[in-house]
Amino acid sequence: MYQLYIANKNYSSWSMRPWLVLQAFQLPFQEVMIPFPFERNTGTFKQEVLAINPNGKVPVLIDHDLMLWDSLAICEYLAERHPDQHLWPQDVRQRARARCIAAEMHSGFSSLRNACGMNIRAHLADVGKRLWQDNAELRQDVARIEQIWSERPEVNDFLCGEFSIADAFYAPVVTRLMTYALPVNESTRQYMHTMLQHPAMQLWMEGALQEQAWVNYLESYQQQPL
Amino acid sequence: MYQLYIANKNYSSWSMRPWLVLQAFQLPFQEVMIPFPFERNTGTFKQEVLAINPNGKVPVLIDHDLMLWDSLAICEYLAERHPDQHLWPQDVRQRARARCIAAEMHSGFSSLRNACGMNIRAHLADVGKRLWQDNAELRQDVARIEQIWSERPEVNDFLCGEFSIADAFYAPVVTRLMTYALPVNESTRQYMHTMLQHPAMQLWMEGALQEQAWVNYLESYQQQPL
Ligand SMILES: N[C@@H](CCC(=O)N[C@@H](CS)C(=O)NCC(=O)O)C(=O)O
Ligand SMILES: N[C@@H](CCC(=O)N[C@@H](CS)C(=O)NCC(=O)O)C(=O)O
Repeated sequence: MYQLYIANKNYSSWSMRPWLVLQAFQLPFQEVMIPFPFERNTGTFKQEVLAINPNGKVPVLIDHDLMLWDSLAICEYLAERHPDQHLWPQDVRQRARARCIAAEMHSGFSSLRNACGMNIRAHLADVGKRLWQDNAELRQDVARIEQIWSERPEVNDFLCGEFSIADAFYAPVVTRLMTYALPVNESTRQYMHTMLQHPAMQLWMEGALQEQAWVNYLESYQQQPL
Repeated sequence: MYQLYIANKNYSSWSMRPWLVLQAFQLPFQEVMIPFPFERNTGTFKQEVLAINPNGKVPVLIDHDLMLWDSLAICEYLAERHPDQHLWPQDVRQRARARCIAAEMHSGFSSLRNACGMNIRAHLADVGKRLWQDNAELRQDVARIEQIWSERPEVNDFLCGEFSIADAFYAPVVTRLMTYALPVNESTRQYMHTMLQHPAMQLWMEGALQEQAWVNYLESYQQQPL
């Protein structure tokens, strides 16, 4: 039984990725939530995370006496531990591609990630419209993502055929495109639809919508409702 | 025979990582250099890279008709292709740790990377002294790196025992600590020493010192010598 430490489902995009992988491949795991504080650097979040992981971030995976941090390292570890489950695509060509696009997400798209923080329950179409006009780097990030997504084997497929770690890495982009209502093409909408049908994706999003916590420093675009 | 596309050895830290892995494990490869332009967004660098890789960055690995981009995806691919060579540590615990620290480098340490760009031939101790005083986030990045490095199995070891992908990921930090003469502890200096003895590391650095090209937008701290 694995334990996966995560932060709020509404906000924590890096937590979402390995959680989706564990859930989608039905690997046995227990979720442990450490919620973000109301204001940055307040509360006990940081010290609770530091007590298990010296780099102070979630997600963290515990496997007996092993502690792994970082979403991508966790996913590679799980793929290695469960070779029959094909967390990466079976086909060598699709597997190479899956690793490249997951790694590109892991180190890139900072404009999209910074301007459009994940916020599953929010509806920020007006904000999205303004950002889209003003922020050329955001438009470039989305264009590159649309290019990557368009290269999936078939229009109804996941990014590299069956659902894999690569899809988990782009899952928070699916929610951001909805939250900020960014203009995307038909092929992109089809992929979003495919992802939104996935049971693991639905479970995470339901969990996010049930959360009550308001994390003020991750809500730069709206006021806390009364 | 692989082909690895890289940029200038003096400046291109992401190119250095998979190059060191190929070289250290004596995998057969041909190096293809696409030098950075003198000024940003001039010359043919971008179009030459885009002709092989739509994301416009190096390193790029070609294996017959497969094209892989991103340093980490390339290294995972090579590890999978050459299982007997142990590009990742053989021991499951050290392998998990190696993946975590490589991934942490892949997505992190932006203050160190931005303030102290790799520049192997330069001597920027004065710049380093000033940055060290002024830049708390730089000091934090170096502190975290010293923590990671201090956890190697033995003081004379590489990060996870034998030389592995994890060491390749931190190799550009070794050169930066020298270029900027940042103050580090004895254990860190011992690891730097171990790395500087490695033949692959020596070969890359010799290559860097032989280069003549001056890339002006990567030389914010000094004037081009006459
Ligand atoms: N590269 C890391 C990024 C992890 C990350 O930034 N996690 C965020 C939550 S989504 C976090 O823990 N932030 C808290 C902090 O930095 O104090 C990964 O892929 O896991
Ligand atoms: N995440 C990528 C980063 C690659 C990267 O940023 N490469 C730099 C050279 S070190 C580059 O090609 N820059 C050219 C550009 O962005 O135009 C990797 O790990 O390979």
